[in-house]
Amino acid sequence: MSLIAVGTVAFDDIETPFGKAGMIVGGAATYISYSATYFTKDVNIVSVIGDDFPQDVLDDLNSRGVNMDGLQVKNGEKSFFWAGKYHTDMNGRDTLDTQLNVLADFDPVLPEAYKNPEYVMLGNLTPQVQMRVIDQLDSKPKLIALDTMNFWMDVALDDLKKVLKKIDVLIINDEEARQLSGEYSLVTAAAKIREMGPGILVIKKGEHGALLFHGEHIFYAPALPLEVVFDPTGAGDTFAGGFMGYIAKTGDTSFEGMKKAIIAGSAMASFCVEKFGTQKLTELSEDMIRERIKRFEQLVRFDTVL
Amino acid sequence: MSLIAVGTVAFDDIETPFGKAGMIVGGAATYISYSATYFTKDVNIVSVIGDDFPQDVLDDLNSRGVNMDGLQVKNGEKSFFWAGKYHTDMNGRDTLDTQLNVLADFDPVLPEAYKNPEYVMLGNLTPQVQMRVIDQLDSKPKLIALDTMNFWMDVALDDLKKVLKKIDVLIINDEEARQLSGEYSLVTAAAKIREMGPGILVIKKGEHGALLFHGEHIFYAPALPLEVVFDPTGAGDTFAGGFMGYIAKTGDTSFEGMKKAIIAGSAMASFCVEKFGTQKLTELSEDMIRERIKRFEQLVRFDTVL
Repeated sequence: MSLIAVGTVAFDDIETPFGKAGMIVGGAATYISYSATYFTKDVNIVSVIGDDFPQDVLDDLNSRGVNMDGLQVKNGEKSFFWAGKYHTDMNGRDTLDTQLNVLADFDPVLPEAYKNPEYVMLGNLTPQVQMRVIDQLDSKPKLIALDTMNFWMDVALDDLKKVLKKIDVLIINDEEARQLSGEYSLVTAAAKIREMGPGILVIKKGEHGALLFHGEHIFYAPALPLEVVFDPTGAGDTFAGGFMGYIAKTGDTSFEGMKKAIIAGSAMASFCVEKFGTQKLTELSEDMIRERIKRFEQLVRFDTVL
Repeated sequence: MSLIAVGTVAFDDIETPFGKAGMIVGGAATYISYSATYFTKDVNIVSVIGDDFPQDVLDDLNSRGVNMDGLQVKNGEKSFFWAGKYHTDMNGRDTLDTQLNVLADFDPVLPEAYKNPEYVMLGNLTPQVQMRVIDQLDSKPKLIALDTMNFWMDVALDDLKKVLKKIDVLIINDEEARQLSGEYSLVTAAAKIREMGPGILVIKKGEHGALLFHGEHIFYAPALPLEVVFDPTGAGDTFAGGFMGYIAKTGDTSFEGMKKAIIAGSAMASFCVEKFGTQKLTELSEDMIRERIKRFEQLVRFDTVL
């Protein structure tokens, strides 16, 4: 079923304790799209690039089922660029450079064929741009999910709160959940955030897994304990892409269905961090994903205790 | 089946964001024993107190199945005392005062009836004292588990490494695992630590759950997302007591058996933090524990994804 993926398509300079990679392909919509295509072939990207973006990457995405009609190409301009360096423990990172370029005045325009999607994944962007996408929809999708970050809570909280009222699922990390709610306990934070609009909340905890708050229920998904995290860039977007891709595949937005979507997203994210950038996401097979998901099942299964 | 619980029996002054409690009963062996008695009635304590310790607490423990023959009472001396204050986020704490008192020259002496136990839980103490207990055993127990802390890695690493060679299960937190191994990845850390002696490793991650490394397998147990953590003191010891108490009850040291023991320990720890000190551990029923364990099962269960 159709999924709209909104976000950046960009270049990254990345330094981790394991090496450096310059001017590699990144961006939220890129990771979301790559990840989602392993579950659905009806992915429709909304983004903007300059004329410096490699055509072979666009062709690759297209061949995997990503429709590019919503991708604006600005001639004579440069794509969004981000440079960052991860700390030794990989849990923190410093931004070294951010060049908005084409993103500075990005006005998303939805092609007619995009205006009645079943599922929408709004990757991290200004809340105004996220709202602009929602405003152009002709019919209410089955599910709108949104990712955001601390930065927008600092500089655009009112706009963020407006868009939160329009969405069904918010996907953020634990730090962001604490900042948005002003609560340390994630249970209390979740209650406050869900009062702001999104009925369903996913809190990503990195190496500690993810929590799903859905109706009266909580689900705690583990993260796979990994020997090496090579590059965490894009792991959150890859998670979101797998999550929404799986839901687009199954059409199941029940608690049971979303639990499985969380595992699918976690499995995709666990691949993403194994190589620099999007590299690993271009190399996967259905068998690899199936085997990885089995490892998640084995990691948490236990028999009746008492 | 018989379980020896070694550790402090002490007084604590505790301050958390939710309040203060002065001179309340604490100590590793106290928490371990209270927790274990919900699974086995053959718990045998090895510790030392002054003549200031309340007799009604000793009577209460005894009535729950804790044998006190290994508890030395030093007349005219004071029990071990610790005072600490938790940070706002409850994830860190400062030690405000430590008075060793009777612990300063503690020489554990095992009564004859203690010398052939099936299970031994060595709570956090100097590695020399832990070794002294092992040296007095007449026969090899089915399982010896040990808890320790960063402090002993700093000041008594050689002694700690000697005792690690004599035990079967090491139970430490993620920070301690990283310090002991010098590795950030917990998977790599686990491999290095297991080379030091303990074939089985449990890494406690507080609010993020616990990992069990057993043979070639890894199990990731969730922690229950809690609205309020009132007082984290003793949670780790309560976990260890529930873990070893459950194993003493079932006699099952297989991977499947230990996974269930981890859940039993996690359930007990989730109770412990709900009130100050050992309070909550004196109020539990089998039904409450069964219901709590069910919540753990529901928290992580999911259907086949692909």
